[in-house]
Amino acid sequence: MKRKSFGAMNCPVARGLERVGDGWGFLILRDALNGMTRFEQFREHLDIAPTTLTRRLDALVAEGLLERRRYAERPPRDDYVLTERGHDFRPVVLTLFAWGARHFTPEGHGAALIDTRTGREADPILIDAVSGRLVSDPAFKMTPRRAAADANRNAPVRRRGRDRKEVAS
Amino acid sequence: MKRKSFGAMNCPVARGLERVGDGWGFLILRDALNGMTRFEQFREHLDIAPTTLTRRLDALVAEGLLERRRYAERPPRDDYVLTERGHDFRPVVLTLFAWGARHFTPEGHGAALIDTRTGREADPILIDAVSGRLVSDPAFKMTPRRAAADANRNAPVRRRGRDRKEVAS
Repeated sequence: MKRKSFGAMNCPVARGLERVGDGWGFLILRDALNGMTRFEQFREHLDIAPTTLTRRLDALVAEGLLERRRYAERPPRDDYVLTERGHDFRPVVLTLFAWGARHFTPEGHGAALIDTRTGREADPILIDAVSGRLVSDPAFKMTPRRAAADANRNAPVRRRGRDRKEVAS
Repeated sequence: MKRKSFGAMNCPVARGLERVGDGWGFLILRDALNGMTRFEQFREHLDIAPTTLTRRLDALVAEGLLERRRYAERPPRDDYVLTERGHDFRPVVLTLFAWGARHFTPEGHGAALIDTRTGREADPILIDAVSGRLVSDPAFKMTPRRAAADANRNAPVRRRGRDRKEVAS
């Protein structure tokens, strides 16, 4: 059953989800970000049906997140390599990883993000590059773009208050 | 068609995805993080079938990401309020937002993350709280937990090299 398309929604979150496709898309990108490139690596690691894997890899290639690189001619075989868009997905996987590790693996889990310069486990946090503050600070709010532009122009409070109700989408 | 469960996988990313459920789960959490609490708000904003929305809200409540708070008795009506787990999902939505905004909304989009202390648009980046460096630095690598523990104990390079092939899962 085809789910509704999110691609027509004017929201970067919905658009991004549409490109990734589904949970398999996330897990394939996770594995690609961890260095996997071969069909057999993905198939074995994900324990996924080959037809499903083929369909998901084709979709990720079509969306520009992976690209094929031929590594053997007879029989023809391709590596699946991350594009720039695909590489840029890494923070999403890492924040999901951190969230899942905090809440859903009480028994511990198999992986850690390591700073190979020091050998220490990293603690990824999201900060605002402009102010240097943690984005978990409640002062950071999603607002409609028009309100955002107004805020930058010191628009009257009345306008911003009203627009904020519309919420990001 | 029920997709395969990711919940049994020993990976925080897979476990997290299982709890969110699907793209609707992401978008409902996005809207909840933007302040929505009411069934009608979600339904209208997402343009989602009521039966689908009911199912997704029930699942998010069952997974402990949202909780119901009764706000009217006749007829009985509940707000859907984020739990701590649900609030903690915010960095995932924000990194998805940043990724989607960078790559998939060339025409611009309707929302921005605003620092309400300054009125400026924020630029969320992922850094390692331990070292202060950007996590996009290639020195940060996902490694199996055993290798991670070994790294912290200054294990021989031989061992870490071998384990790294196994990749996070």
